[in-house]
Amino acid sequence: MSLQNPVFIPGPTNIPEVIRKACDMPTVDHLSPAFAPILKAALAGCRGVMKAERGEIFIFPSTGTGGWETAISNTLSAGDTVLAARNGMFSDRWIKMCRRFGLEVIQIDVTWGEGIPLPRFAELLHEDKAGRIKAVLATHNETATGVVSDIAGLRRVVDEASHDALLLVDGVSSIGSMPFEFDDWRVDVAVTGSQKGFMLPPGLAITAFSEKALAASRDAKLPRNFFNIDDMRATNVANGYPYTPLVGLLNGLALSSRMLLDEGLDNVFARHARIANGVRAAVAAWGLAPCAAASELYSNSVTAIRVPHGFDPARIVTHAAERYGMAFGAGLGDVAGQVFRIGHLGMLTDAMALSGLAVAEMCMADLGLDIRLGAGVAAAQALYRHGCEQMKAAAD
Amino acid sequence: MSLQNPVFIPGPTNIPEVIRKACDMPTVDHLSPAFAPILKAALAGCRGVMKAERGEIFIFPSTGTGGWETAISNTLSAGDTVLAARNGMFSDRWIKMCRRFGLEVIQIDVTWGEGIPLPRFAELLHEDKAGRIKAVLATHNETATGVVSDIAGLRRVVDEASHDALLLVDGVSSIGSMPFEFDDWRVDVAVTGSQKGFMLPPGLAITAFSEKALAASRDAKLPRNFFNIDDMRATNVANGYPYTPLVGLLNGLALSSRMLLDEGLDNVFARHARIANGVRAAVAAWGLAPCAAASELYSNSVTAIRVPHGFDPARIVTHAAERYGMAFGAGLGDVAGQVFRIGHLGMLTDAMALSGLAVAEMCMADLGLDIRLGAGVAAAQALYRHGCEQMKAAAD
Amino acid sequence: MSLQNPVFIPGPTNIPEVIRKACDMPTVDHLSPAFAPILKAALAGCRGVMKAERGEIFIFPSTGTGGWETAISNTLSAGDTVLAARNGMFSDRWIKMCRRFGLEVIQIDVTWGEGIPLPRFAELLHEDKAGRIKAVLATHNETATGVVSDIAGLRRVVDEASHDALLLVDGVSSIGSMPFEFDDWRVDVAVTGSQKGFMLPPGLAITAFSEKALAASRDAKLPRNFFNIDDMRATNVANGYPYTPLVGLLNGLALSSRMLLDEGLDNVFARHARIANGVRAAVAAWGLAPCAAASELYSNSVTAIRVPHGFDPARIVTHAAERYGMAFGAGLGDVAGQVFRIGHLGMLTDAMALSGLAVAEMCMADLGLDIRLGAGVAAAQALYRHGCEQMKAAAD
Amino acid sequence: MSLQNPVFIPGPTNIPEVIRKACDMPTVDHLSPAFAPILKAALAGCRGVMKAERGEIFIFPSTGTGGWETAISNTLSAGDTVLAARNGMFSDRWIKMCRRFGLEVIQIDVTWGEGIPLPRFAELLHEDKAGRIKAVLATHNETATGVVSDIAGLRRVVDEASHDALLLVDGVSSIGSMPFEFDDWRVDVAVTGSQKGFMLPPGLAITAFSEKALAASRDAKLPRNFFNIDDMRATNVANGYPYTPLVGLLNGLALSSRMLLDEGLDNVFARHARIANGVRAAVAAWGLAPCAAASELYSNSVTAIRVPHGFDPARIVTHAAERYGMAFGAGLGDVAGQVFRIGHLGMLTDAMALSGLAVAEMCMADLGLDIRLGAGVAAAQALYRHGCEQMKAAAD
Repeated sequence: MSLQNPVFIPGPTNIPEVIRKACDMPTVDHLSPAFAPILKAALAGCRGVMKAERGEIFIFPSTGTGGWETAISNTLSAGDTVLAARNGMFSDRWIKMCRRFGLEVIQIDVTWGEGIPLPRFAELLHEDKAGRIKAVLATHNETATGVVSDIAGLRRVVDEASHDALLLVDGVSSIGSMPFEFDDWRVDVAVTGSQKGFMLPPGLAITAFSEKALAASRDAKLPRNFFNIDDMRATNVANGYPYTPLVGLLNGLALSSRMLLDEGLDNVFARHARIANGVRAAVAAWGLAPCAAASELYSNSVTAIRVPHGFDPARIVTHAAERYGMAFGAGLGDVAGQVFRIGHLGMLTDAMALSGLAVAEMCMADLGLDIRLGAGVAAAQALYRHGCEQMKAAAD
Repeated sequence: MSLQNPVFIPGPTNIPEVIRKACDMPTVDHLSPAFAPILKAALAGCRGVMKAERGEIFIFPSTGTGGWETAISNTLSAGDTVLAARNGMFSDRWIKMCRRFGLEVIQIDVTWGEGIPLPRFAELLHEDKAGRIKAVLATHNETATGVVSDIAGLRRVVDEASHDALLLVDGVSSIGSMPFEFDDWRVDVAVTGSQKGFMLPPGLAITAFSEKALAASRDAKLPRNFFNIDDMRATNVANGYPYTPLVGLLNGLALSSRMLLDEGLDNVFARHARIANGVRAAVAAWGLAPCAAASELYSNSVTAIRVPHGFDPARIVTHAAERYGMAFGAGLGDVAGQVFRIGHLGMLTDAMALSGLAVAEMCMADLGLDIRLGAGVAAAQALYRHGCEQMKAAAD
Repeated sequence: MSLQNPVFIPGPTNIPEVIRKACDMPTVDHLSPAFAPILKAALAGCRGVMKAERGEIFIFPSTGTGGWETAISNTLSAGDTVLAARNGMFSDRWIKMCRRFGLEVIQIDVTWGEGIPLPRFAELLHEDKAGRIKAVLATHNETATGVVSDIAGLRRVVDEASHDALLLVDGVSSIGSMPFEFDDWRVDVAVTGSQKGFMLPPGLAITAFSEKALAASRDAKLPRNFFNIDDMRATNVANGYPYTPLVGLLNGLALSSRMLLDEGLDNVFARHARIANGVRAAVAAWGLAPCAAASELYSNSVTAIRVPHGFDPARIVTHAAERYGMAFGAGLGDVAGQVFRIGHLGMLTDAMALSGLAVAEMCMADLGLDIRLGAGVAAAQALYRHGCEQMKAAAD
Repeated sequence: MSLQNPVFIPGPTNIPEVIRKACDMPTVDHLSPAFAPILKAALAGCRGVMKAERGEIFIFPSTGTGGWETAISNTLSAGDTVLAARNGMFSDRWIKMCRRFGLEVIQIDVTWGEGIPLPRFAELLHEDKAGRIKAVLATHNETATGVVSDIAGLRRVVDEASHDALLLVDGVSSIGSMPFEFDDWRVDVAVTGSQKGFMLPPGLAITAFSEKALAASRDAKLPRNFFNIDDMRATNVANGYPYTPLVGLLNGLALSSRMLLDEGLDNVFARHARIANGVRAAVAAWGLAPCAAASELYSNSVTAIRVPHGFDPARIVTHAAERYGMAFGAGLGDVAGQVFRIGHLGMLTDAMALSGLAVAEMCMADLGLDIRLGAGVAAAQALYRHGCEQMKAAAD
């Protein structure tokens, strides 16, 4: 594995130089006044990126998994029922966590590659006149399959059922990379991590809670200690922390969120879409198809690519690492033997993306797949240079 | 606050240059073979530093508080009884966490400045013929008071009572700085963090579990998710992680633990004792006294210093930060208005320690305390230059 | 210009992570014993990489240009005659420097793209029975044209003429990237810089002097002050320096030279040849040709590429920077309007090289050149994956 | 030697965190537009710090010694006469360089510890009706003795003699630390380095040339190549460089000069004076005396301290390094056996300064000098806490 190559895993992402430097701090006394501006800027930045002006942000030294636990343990009680679709490895894991906490899960199994089945959710919510369902869990972007689900649609479904369930959304691999509207979608708890759209090393679980979620937290009975938002809020208001904060990462988060907001979220999302379109064009040029079942499900942060039947896609990942020193994502769970994944979130240049595609196609060719070298690269190039035709015209 | 001055808080500590560089890694795919040597070295290093050859190490992306939660939630069930002394802020917090988890706590209140009252523990354990007490919780070094308790003695007490309780030890501010014998003391769960004796930034809860604790974990019913040692073990054995690991910090931990072991733990402890002796000599020269009630309780990682009655010690901490850009620790909890603290753990040179003492005495003088400038520094110098007399002799 | 993209200028090169960290040192007292091992390792490493076991190494805080001055001013006197070919920008500049020093230059003009004309040199040296020519200057690798000259052949020519001239070689863009034999070729002064094959930031002029050159220095009358090898030698022997050394860069040089030697110079050169072959395969696939007039002149550190007549190649460089944030080299001097350059020296992965080729072909297409996207990339890929056919076979 | 301790050599100085990060850049193509803002900011910053609005700045990849060479070789011709005082190691070296260049030097020997003898200079300049003296060389701050000379006075002396000589000033260890007025003093060439008041690693010779010096350069005949200001000017105007620039250091220089200007030069100088006063108070408390012969000669960047007769001061420097891992400066040249030096330029906090004094007095005590521990520290503390008495009063 070369430290010089970009990584093409769906997070942690390639960390921009300035962000690495912002994270690499000497020890700062977190109980001194020097901590306040860092914490404030990090919280404000997250609020901006999550479009959660009406939300309250809580940042825990942890990972996305800790964010899931924060969402559940602060809003629910043992025996509560939640509704969730299992359409990938990460929705599956969140469901399993719920069960461990003694929650009842109405698990809707869908083929991996599909999104959250809104009609089925609509039915179940309509039927639940008693309000047994306390929360609807949604994985915005399934990192295992490269499938983005329709959270705005899910909000409508809940509303149309006049259902009072909380809407808990895993935005780990979407927030900062694809449109996410905490306020507009009236999300109740959103969860992400530092190592995805925020372009930082891992180490922070970032959550936003709505007023309604905060109200629910007052009755929630699941044990919560490390991930207790009351402790976090009580200390944050005085620019403190319930335990030792990860000052360097928070400082990095303050910077990276400002970078995203300065660039403009719409521009950030357009940049991700552009890079993703190039990757998908390459996939098509290779004669392969995304795992995502329909184009409206395509994720702009990761593409899971189906390989020909009988070919083990893990070989691509291993070969890329061993021979070319480059990291791709392997298939996980139900699609483990069917896909490999190219992560394309965070700060990627065209050149970086093309290097990943070039290596991917060398690997596939090396391993005997019928891939024409340069084909995927050319397809992505055609897309990346879009808008440069006028130069050609001017030169003619 | 100056980034050029050393910090004198009792953790996070001053991070040596090489360790900062080891932590500041570009993104490494944690699912690639590149992660295995990092994880293995970190685990082996912790085992060495904790003298836990018979223990199993689990490292969570978290802080010491997460380590407490790991210790409790993996070994106990709601309703279980634990025995604990409250002799400082951190023992107090651990007790509160137990209560939140629905544990019964036999809380022994002692004056802050005292250690764990072994005779009282002996009584209670002897009386507990029914084995109601499932665990004894011990804070090895109370960071709030600078008091080190006798864990070897506590082990003897438990043994003499032929009691089967688990021995759970918070070694957050002792491990890596003062003698700690996981195996010899037959500790069942030991907890520490990256940001103390290991000289790293915060972000890792480091725990060691004995065979007995692992056995207890099989029956423990408290919900455990993020801090689940079963998930950690199941993935670690294959050089994996249950979620995204903090690769940079683990890499730093691999280095810092090797540095400690290469220096020799006895030398590391002697170094800490030496620096601490200098600080205590300065305290005496100032006419002040440690919070610790007796010399055998003196901590080598932090000294809490009692100020004259009626003087608010928080002023020293504020003044040091504002005027001299230096960080000391404020008093916490029961001793908040009585002490300020000088942290002296991690990699400190004589020169660094003396700079802290020099600033502390300027602050006290500035604020009207009757301190002779240079007095504390001179007392520490006399100690730090010990062994150099022969030079003088040779020069005569 | 993106800091995330690799650079494709012919130096400074892409700096590996570990080397950046080795250079980024806190202040070290260069008069303390801490400096000796750094200086020694740097000197020994340079000796190894230059294959100059019989040479003496002098490292000046400067650049390659300072190295040229070191070579001249320490061995020659005003009025001395030197023989040099002008076959590119850098040989031209060295010649100009000689003239400024009041040296007589027998300048052999050759078409840029050609190497040093050995037959012509042979003639001139044969004719020079009086030994008027004091030194032969040779630019081993002309960075402006991507042409490598035959230094071993030049040595033979000098020998066959039984001529006593010093052989001064500019190895700035060859040493560490292509075979260079200071001892075997009996080079008298070799010159390079830190920012090329040594993969460091710029800042050091690295020179090796033969016994004969050292002898010549005793009679040389050109003023030499900053670049005086006598001052350097007199201080280096005591692990000192005639002025403040660049400790961080020297520390980086100690590491980078060890990395090259550990990898094995033959492997390093083979790696450069492999990457360069891919670049040249791409050039051919684009229907273009290197500036170098014959394949035996091809440089493995930089390729200058001729563009179609009437097209301004500087537009490619500008467009790559502005549109794709990537740096290529522009044409210089006589070939300024005819070529652009791809630097491929230092530590480059296949993935990095392919990203440069992909961007180069997008730029050419954008600007209206008749380039099929992916064509050059595919040609390079075919070469880079060489040796992987057996995998395909095994998979069949 | 500990990398954690501050250094107390008179340069290179302790590098602030942000400056280290500014210098540690990935490779930037210096021929791309990315270089222009870095170069411009560095040049403008130097102009500001040197107060050289009427001067032209030239920055060479080199050290202060290269700056001396730049000053001489660009303004003088072989056989020219210069006037210089030899009052320390660095003035001595500059004189020697002049001689090597074939200049005639009127060398005024003064006891080391004295400044430039203005009356003697006045005499000589008055006598020189023929204008034989082409330049007056002045070492503003003699780093070897800690003596600052009166450059404004020297300007007056030259003016009063109605002499046309150029005024060439070595400000290596004064500029950025003590008042320096390029324009007001009508300095013709000023020389400094990156590693002193600019707080950077070594690697840059920074020079400012007056109009008169630029005019002189047109007739100057000394060979100049690497240090040729014409080449530098010709390329700088187009944001270029005559060879590969040290982009990282220039980026650091852009930042450090802005930091100095943002702080306000008067504040910077007051800060240096304050720290220096503390050091001198310590020296007095030790019963020792500065090498500088009178208080008006005291340098605020370095103090050379006379030790008792018969005691070898080099032992202090060696002992400090070996025993306490701290770097002080040894005595040089004429005062080698008489003084050791404490450098106190650059960004030093009170705490850092006190740590140096504490170690110095331990060393002296260790080696048998009659030093009361804490005495020097207390004297400096009394000074550093000046202005804090009101706190004490308020507390009373």
